[in-house]
Amino acid sequence: MAKKVKIGVLGAGRIGRLHITNLVQSVPEAEVVAIADPFLNEDAVAFAQGLGITKYSKDPQDIFENPEIEAVFVCTSTDAHAEMIQRAAAAGKHVFCEKPVHTDLNEIRKAIRAVEDAGVKLQVGFVRRFDHNHKKVHDVVASGKLGQPHIIKVCSRDPDHQPMEYIATSGGIFMDMTIHDFDMVRYLSCSEVTEVCAYGAALSGQGYDKYNDVDTAIIMLKFENGAIGVIDNSRASHYGYDQRTEVHCDKGCVQVANDLDDTAMISTNEGVEVAKPTWFFLERYNNAFIQEAKDFCDAILHDTAVPVGSKDGLMPVAIAMAAAKSYQEGRSVKLSEILA
Amino acid sequence: MAKKVKIGVLGAGRIGRLHITNLVQSVPEAEVVAIADPFLNEDAVAFAQGLGITKYSKDPQDIFENPEIEAVFVCTSTDAHAEMIQRAAAAGKHVFCEKPVHTDLNEIRKAIRAVEDAGVKLQVGFVRRFDHNHKKVHDVVASGKLGQPHIIKVCSRDPDHQPMEYIATSGGIFMDMTIHDFDMVRYLSCSEVTEVCAYGAALSGQGYDKYNDVDTAIIMLKFENGAIGVIDNSRASHYGYDQRTEVHCDKGCVQVANDLDDTAMISTNEGVEVAKPTWFFLERYNNAFIQEAKDFCDAILHDTAVPVGSKDGLMPVAIAMAAAKSYQEGRSVKLSEILA
Amino acid sequence: MAKKVKIGVLGAGRIGRLHITNLVQSVPEAEVVAIADPFLNEDAVAFAQGLGITKYSKDPQDIFENPEIEAVFVCTSTDAHAEMIQRAAAAGKHVFCEKPVHTDLNEIRKAIRAVEDAGVKLQVGFVRRFDHNHKKVHDVVASGKLGQPHIIKVCSRDPDHQPMEYIATSGGIFMDMTIHDFDMVRYLSCSEVTEVCAYGAALSGQGYDKYNDVDTAIIMLKFENGAIGVIDNSRASHYGYDQRTEVHCDKGCVQVANDLDDTAMISTNEGVEVAKPTWFFLERYNNAFIQEAKDFCDAILHDTAVPVGSKDGLMPVAIAMAAAKSYQEGRSVKLSEILA
Amino acid sequence: MAKKVKIGVLGAGRIGRLHITNLVQSVPEAEVVAIADPFLNEDAVAFAQGLGITKYSKDPQDIFENPEIEAVFVCTSTDAHAEMIQRAAAAGKHVFCEKPVHTDLNEIRKAIRAVEDAGVKLQVGFVRRFDHNHKKVHDVVASGKLGQPHIIKVCSRDPDHQPMEYIATSGGIFMDMTIHDFDMVRYLSCSEVTEVCAYGAALSGQGYDKYNDVDTAIIMLKFENGAIGVIDNSRASHYGYDQRTEVHCDKGCVQVANDLDDTAMISTNEGVEVAKPTWFFLERYNNAFIQEAKDFCDAILHDTAVPVGSKDGLMPVAIAMAAAKSYQEGRSVKLSEILA
Repeated sequence: MAKKVKIGVLGAGRIGRLHITNLVQSVPEAEVVAIADPFLNEDAVAFAQGLGITKYSKDPQDIFENPEIEAVFVCTSTDAHAEMIQRAAAAGKHVFCEKPVHTDLNEIRKAIRAVEDAGVKLQVGFVRRFDHNHKKVHDVVASGKLGQPHIIKVCSRDPDHQPMEYIATSGGIFMDMTIHDFDMVRYLSCSEVTEVCAYGAALSGQGYDKYNDVDTAIIMLKFENGAIGVIDNSRASHYGYDQRTEVHCDKGCVQVANDLDDTAMISTNEGVEVAKPTWFFLERYNNAFIQEAKDFCDAILHDTAVPVGSKDGLMPVAIAMAAAKSYQEGRSVKLSEILA
Repeated sequence: MAKKVKIGVLGAGRIGRLHITNLVQSVPEAEVVAIADPFLNEDAVAFAQGLGITKYSKDPQDIFENPEIEAVFVCTSTDAHAEMIQRAAAAGKHVFCEKPVHTDLNEIRKAIRAVEDAGVKLQVGFVRRFDHNHKKVHDVVASGKLGQPHIIKVCSRDPDHQPMEYIATSGGIFMDMTIHDFDMVRYLSCSEVTEVCAYGAALSGQGYDKYNDVDTAIIMLKFENGAIGVIDNSRASHYGYDQRTEVHCDKGCVQVANDLDDTAMISTNEGVEVAKPTWFFLERYNNAFIQEAKDFCDAILHDTAVPVGSKDGLMPVAIAMAAAKSYQEGRSVKLSEILA
Repeated sequence: MAKKVKIGVLGAGRIGRLHITNLVQSVPEAEVVAIADPFLNEDAVAFAQGLGITKYSKDPQDIFENPEIEAVFVCTSTDAHAEMIQRAAAAGKHVFCEKPVHTDLNEIRKAIRAVEDAGVKLQVGFVRRFDHNHKKVHDVVASGKLGQPHIIKVCSRDPDHQPMEYIATSGGIFMDMTIHDFDMVRYLSCSEVTEVCAYGAALSGQGYDKYNDVDTAIIMLKFENGAIGVIDNSRASHYGYDQRTEVHCDKGCVQVANDLDDTAMISTNEGVEVAKPTWFFLERYNNAFIQEAKDFCDAILHDTAVPVGSKDGLMPVAIAMAAAKSYQEGRSVKLSEILA
Repeated sequence: MAKKVKIGVLGAGRIGRLHITNLVQSVPEAEVVAIADPFLNEDAVAFAQGLGITKYSKDPQDIFENPEIEAVFVCTSTDAHAEMIQRAAAAGKHVFCEKPVHTDLNEIRKAIRAVEDAGVKLQVGFVRRFDHNHKKVHDVVASGKLGQPHIIKVCSRDPDHQPMEYIATSGGIFMDMTIHDFDMVRYLSCSEVTEVCAYGAALSGQGYDKYNDVDTAIIMLKFENGAIGVIDNSRASHYGYDQRTEVHCDKGCVQVANDLDDTAMISTNEGVEVAKPTWFFLERYNNAFIQEAKDFCDAILHDTAVPVGSKDGLMPVAIAMAAAKSYQEGRSVKLSEILA
C-alpha cells in the first residue's frame, strides 16, 4: 500500500473535527494517528472512536513525543496557534495551522523562524484558495493569457450575524473576516499588497459600534504589480454566503459567481425564483477543505513546497492591521508602516 | 454507537466499488461486512483491504449464508440481477439492486414476488432521483403549489460515445440509456406512463445502425394524470453530461439546468466563455449515489418504505420495451400492449 | 436622397398599424403612401394623419390602381390574404403578407402561382426568423461549424389564454399557434419536415375540448436531412412569452434562452428573484418586425430574393394539417400524405 | 391631436443627432422645430431634411428668438453648455442639457440661478437613470422593501480606449467617465455623497500617464445616509460595455448584470460560449435616451418636476473634483472641501 502521512491533530472542536473527518474519509494519503485536546470530553472520544482513532489525550505533548507522527494539524484556539507551531517544529513535525497564525506580527515571525530553523513545512489554512471557483480565477490570471491584472475584486459577505459575544473578542472585522479576503486578493493578483484604505460602517443596529467594530466595510488596495483592488464585506447578507471574485486584466476579465444549492428556476405569474447561494461555509468550502489537506500531505510525501506557506501566514495579518489603522485614522495606509 | 446496517456487496466492478467506497466513507449508517465477486482479483482484494474490509470471496453464497449480513447490494452484471435478488430474498436479506432488474418483464416479476414473499425490502438503483436538481423539480411538482403537471421534459445526453462493443450488447438506446429517463419522467410527473411514441436516428456515423440501434432519439409520452411529455437523447453531446429536466404545470414551470464544473466567466474580445457541464456521471451524481445508499439504510433501520421500490424496477423496463416497439413499428404504443 | 420603396398597406388593425408605424419611423427604405381598410374609421384616419400619411380609403382597389405604389403589405383578416395577394400580383405589386397565407393548400398554391406569373416578390410574415436569438441559432447551424443538425427543439408557450371566442374560430392550436414553430423548425434545421406525430391535451379547464382543441401539445418531427425534432406548446405559461430554441449537432449544441424584462436579481432571506420573460409578443419581437420590413424593402430595392418566400408560406400550413391529422388519428403522419 | 412640446436643438453633432432622431421618431410628445449649429454643414442639412425639419441655421440666436419654441436641447460642446443654458433661460425656454453642465462649479451655479430666476425647467442628460436595469435597482432601493442601503456598487468599463487626442482634453477619467457613475451612486443610494477616496493607475501602456490621467480607477464613497460604496472603472474592457450595478441593504441585495447581444449558448468540446455585453453606449442605452426625452417633455406638458434637475447637474461634478483631488493628494476627501 502507498505510504501515508501519519498525523496528530491538536484540537477537536468544530474545525478540528472537520479536518479529522476529511483526513480519515477523504484523504487516502493521510492517517490520523492521535488527537489531543485539553478539553477532550466523552463526545470527542466517541467521535474519535467512530472514526477508528484509538489514541486521544488532553495533552498536546503526547502528540509531539509520538515518534510515529510526522505532521500535526493545529486546530486549537487562535491564541495558541503560534506556540503549537513552535513546539511542533521543535519536535520535528510538519505543521498545518488554521488561520490566523497569530494577531501579533512578532509572534508570527517567531513561529516562522521556528519552522525554518527546524526545516519542517508550515501550511496555513487559507482554504478558499482550494475552491474550484476562486482557483479558476487565479489559474487564468497566473496563466498570463489575459495579460497583466488591473483590477482585483472580492465580494465576501457572511450569511448572517455572529453572536455579539463572538464579535466582542473577534479582533474586529478586518482581522476576523476580511483576513480571508486579504489572502484571496494576494492569491488572485499573484502579487503583494502595498497600501490599503478602508471605509466601514455599523449599519445593522446589532451593536457592532459598542466594540468599535463595523458590520459593513469596503477596502481599496494597491499591489506591487501596479494593479488596484477592492473588497466589500458585510457581516449579514441574509441570502447566503456571498463569495464572488473577479480580476480584470489587460485583455479581459475573469469572474466567478456563487455556488447555488441547485439550478432550479421556478417561474409563475408572481415571478421567477432561483436558488440561494450555499449558506454554510463548511458546506460551501467542503471540497476545498479536503483539497488543502490532500495538498499538504502531497507536499510532505514528495517533499515539495506547500501551497500556502509562511509568508501567506504573515501578510494577511499585516494587511488587516493596515486596514484597521486606515479605518481608525481615516487615511490610506502603506504596508511598509506596518511591516517596518 | 448507533446501530448500523451490515451489508454484503455482490460484484466489485466499477459500480460495486463506487457503492462500497460510499458505504464505507460516507454512510455512517452502513457497515460493509463482506464482498463477493466471481471474478475477484488481487486488485479487488487490495481495494477491499484498503477500506478495512476483511471478508471477500468469489462465491455469492458466502454472503447469503452469513447470518450477520442484513442487506445486500447487487452490483453484478445485469443478467444476474434478478437471480441474485431471489437468492438474497430466500436468505432473508434486504436488497439494493442496480438498474435494470432485468430486461425481461417476467424475470422482474419473479424477483418482485420473491422479495414480497420473503418480506424483505427491494430498492432499485435509479440514482438520479436523489440528485439535488431533479429532486427539487419533483418536490415542487409533488407539493402541488404549481397545480397539475401539463408537460414533462427531460433532456438527457451522454458526453461521448461508448465503444461499439458495448453498444452491440447494450440492449439498445431505450433499454440502456433512456431507461433512466423513463424512471425520471415517472418521478417528475408523479404519475404513470400510458403510451409512448419514439423517433430515432443513427446520425453520428459511428455505426449504431449496424446493431439496429440509434444514437439520437426523441420519445413522446402520455401519463395517467393527463400530462404529456418528451425525452430527447443523444449518445454524444461532446460538451458534457447534459441532464436537464422541466415540468410545466397549471400555474407555471419548474426547470433545472446542468451542474457546471465552476461558475467562471472569462470575457475577452474573442468572446465570453463559461464552464462545461460536469462530464462523468460518477462525478455528476456523486452525492446522489451517497444519498440513495443512506436512504436504503434508513428504510431498513426504521422499517419504512424504500424510496425506489419494486414497481419502479418494473415500469421503466416496460416503457423501454414500448419505446423500442414504437420505433420499430413507426406508431404510438400503449403500455397496456406491453404489460398485458 | 436614397430611393425608397413606396408602399400601400391593406388593413389598419393591430398588426397593420404595427407595420405602418415601423415603416414610417424605423424603415428609412420605405415610404407609406396609402392605407386601405374596409372598416376604416375615424380612429384609423387620425392614426394615419399622425404619421403624416394623407391617402386612406375603404377600398383596396385604390391601392392596386395607384401607379406610384410598388409594394403592398397585406394585413387584412386571414381569409382575405390569398385573394389580396392575387389582386396585388395582377396589379404588378410586390407583396408582404402576414401569416398564414391561407388554411387551404390550394388557395395558397393559387396565390403563389399568381405572384410567380406576375414576376413579383412575395414575402410571408414569419417574423421570428428576424429575432436576434433564433437567428443566431439558425446562423450557427447554417454555418456548418457544429456539423449536421441532429435534434431540433422549440419550446413555445403563450403567456396566457386567448378568449374562448377567439379559440372557437382559430383553426386549432396547430394552425393558429404552432404554425410559427413549424416555420421555426424548418428555419433552424435548414431542412424540410417529412413526418410528424402530435400528442395534445386540454388540461387548463378553460374549455378547449368543446372546440376539439387542446391547450397543451407536443409534436415530434422528422426532417429530410435525417434530423429529428420536437416542439412543445402551451396556451398559457402564466410567467411570460416562453420562446426557447435549441439545435444539437454533430459537434455540440446551440441554444437560446428567453429575453427578460431586465437583468435584476433580488436576493433576500425569502429567496432569489429574477425577471420574467417579456410578456407581449409585440414587445418581444419588436425589433424583428422592423427587421423583416427592412429586409423586404431591401429585396425590392436590390432585386434580390426575399428572406421568407412562397414555399415558406406553404409548408408550415401543410405541417399544421399533418399535425392535426396525427393528433386526431393517433398516429405518425407523413407530409407526403398532405402534399399529395 | 395632443399638444406637443416644440423644441429647438442646439448642436447637430453625434449626440445632437441622436436626440433629434429620437424626438422625431420615438417621442410623440415632441416636435423638433429648428436646429442651430455653428458648424452646420451640408450633411447636417440633409440629415435635418430627411427628418422633415425645415428650419436650420448656424446661429443659436435663431432658436432663442423663435417664439414658437418652448424648449431647447443643449447638445453643443461641453464648454458652451452653461452659457447656452443661461441664454435659453433668458429667452424663457425650458432646457435639456447634456452632461456635464460645466467643469467649473461656479459656472454651473450661475446656470442654475439663471433657470431658477427665469422659472424654466432644467434637465441634465444623465441618461443611465432611464435604463431598465439601473432603474430597477433604484426602484427596489427606493421602495424600502430591502430596508436601508449599506453598500452601493457600480462597475463601469468602456469597451475600448478613446483616441489619445480625446484623452488629452477630456478633463481626466473622473470628470469624463466616472461622472456618470457619480450620478449613478447618488441615484441608487437615494442619498448624497459626503466623502470619496480614489486609487488610480495607468496600466494599459496607451500613455494616459502623459496627461496625468489613468485608465483604471477605483473610488470609495461615503453617503449621508450612512451607506458606503465603490465604483470601479476601466477605459478598456475589451469584451464590451460593462455596466453592472448593485446595492446591498438591510435585508438583502439587488444587482443587475449586463445586457447581452443575444441569449445564445454554444456548447462544444472546446468550451461553452455566450454572447458579449452590448458594445456601443448608443446601442446599450438606446431606449434610455428615448425615455429621458419623453420624461422631459412630460414634465413640461404637465408642469411637473424634471427627473434629473439642477442639483443633479452640480453634484457629480463636485464629486469628480473630490475624486481627482483624492487621487492627486493620496487621501480621502470630504465633499465639504469642494463645495465650500
